Amino acid sequence: MTAEEAATAAAQWQPVARSRTYELVITAIEEQIITGALGVGNPLPAERDLAAKLQVSRSAVREAFRVLEAQGVLRSAVGSGAGAGTFVASMPSEALTRFLRLHIALSNFAFADLVEARVTLERSSVALTARHPHPERLTAVRAAIEIMDADDVDRTTFNDADTAFHTAIAHAGGNRLVTAITVAIRNAMRGRILAAFEEIDDWPALREVLRSEHRAILAAIAAGDPATAAALAEQHIRSAYELLPALHDDPA
Amino acid sequence: MTAEEAATAAAQWQPVARSRTYELVITAIEEQIITGALGVGNPLPAERDLAAKLQVSRSAVREAFRVLEAQGVLRSAVGSGAGAGTFVASMPSEALTRFLRLHIALSNFAFADLVEARVTLERSSVALTARHPHPERLTAVRAAIEIMDADDVDRTTFNDADTAFHTAIAHAGGNRLVTAITVAIRNAMRGRILAAFEEIDDWPALREVLRSEHRAILAAIAAGDPATAAALAEQHIRSAYELLPALHDDPA
Repeated sequence: MTAEEAATAAAQWQPVARSRTYELVITAIEEQIITGALGVGNPLPAERDLAAKLQVSRSAVREAFRVLEAQGVLRSAVGSGAGAGTFVASMPSEALTRFLRLHIALSNFAFADLVEARVTLERSSVALTARHPHPERLTAVRAAIEIMDADDVDRTTFNDADTAFHTAIAHAGGNRLVTAITVAIRNAMRGRILAAFEEIDDWPALREVLRSEHRAILAAIAAGDPATAAALAEQHIRSAYELLPALHDDPA
Repeated sequence: MTAEEAATAAAQWQPVARSRTYELVITAIEEQIITGALGVGNPLPAERDLAAKLQVSRSAVREAFRVLEAQGVLRSAVGSGAGAGTFVASMPSEALTRFLRLHIALSNFAFADLVEARVTLERSSVALTARHPHPERLTAVRAAIEIMDADDVDRTTFNDADTAFHTAIAHAGGNRLVTAITVAIRNAMRGRILAAFEEIDDWPALREVLRSEHRAILAAIAAGDPATAAALAEQHIRSAYELLPALHDDPA
């Protein structure tokens, strides 16, 4: 084999990772936001001007705008006045919840990893809430408990109120980032938790365990006892996982 | 005033929240994923078929596919063989990191909230890592420390290695969801931390404090001491925040 033949044999051809133009435009816009050059409410250059600056086609810019609008990063106002054009939007928390929910559905995180993440975040939320237990912030927590305490509450209603309970505690903690992530994870688990509830034969017994755990967490928060509240929240999340065998089967 | 007049006076006209057709298509596809009807690797119906099923135009379907591809939810393979078409992709962690980074940049979370979230997540990561301190998992942590320990390392290089240090510890903890969130938050803070470094007069003194804190965290992890590692990580994140006054000015 000649050196030339050896070189040919060794050559590995991989498909070229080709970024489409609109993806490059998206990256360029995101960079401006990350560095702080573009902030919430700032206008973007007109389609034609941005296309010229980036040396791409106007359709690539239009495409990029559309993708970023769908993600809640940009918003556009139609018309021809001063208020018209494309602007940087303040991504709503719902956008994060929606994205995380999809991501969790697709990334096949081990359920045990989700449980561990919830333990971490919710220990922090309940402790923060217990440090400053404003009664008015706990109204939504109490409302969720009342729904779960109703006689003969069914699994679906209970699961929705259970989600609301954990969401309300996260809100009461006051850290918006921790809240957004906690709510997204609990929401992403909603469907699988309901399915796991459906497989439980003695629903009234399980319901009673969960009810008393929720009440104990609220009592520790209202008493201003962060350490107990955190320990009870951790125990509640872990024991619910243990009591619901259907959650242990990770999707393939 | 007649009853009719009263009703007219009370009528409140709000702009109609109009979803564009491709957004409805996106929602329809996301629903299928959340409920588990569509999983990673599953093909979507052809553009024409999906348009017929949803009773929308083909261009709305094309638009929705493009948005979801840009988010890493779908991937399409060109050609005409059996492997061609549009498929559900497994969203990579980088997609979550990228989305969260943008979200943090745009949502104006109070810096104190980011610090609190980091404390919560990184306490958990270092404790997990310390419970199972595989030496090979700590290689990247040591490499980052070496870069920061170099004589006369400048602020930019130090900040990049500092980010790498926290990222490597999160990875070593092994919880992919906690890792993705931790990495996103530290990355989102990168620019502001560098700017805060730049405002420090006695850079060598600050650098030395951070170096010794990093080494102490690694030592506690390597010694298999979760409680000490968690306490040191918390102390490190809080004291860095205290030592960098520029971080205390929240953006308006």
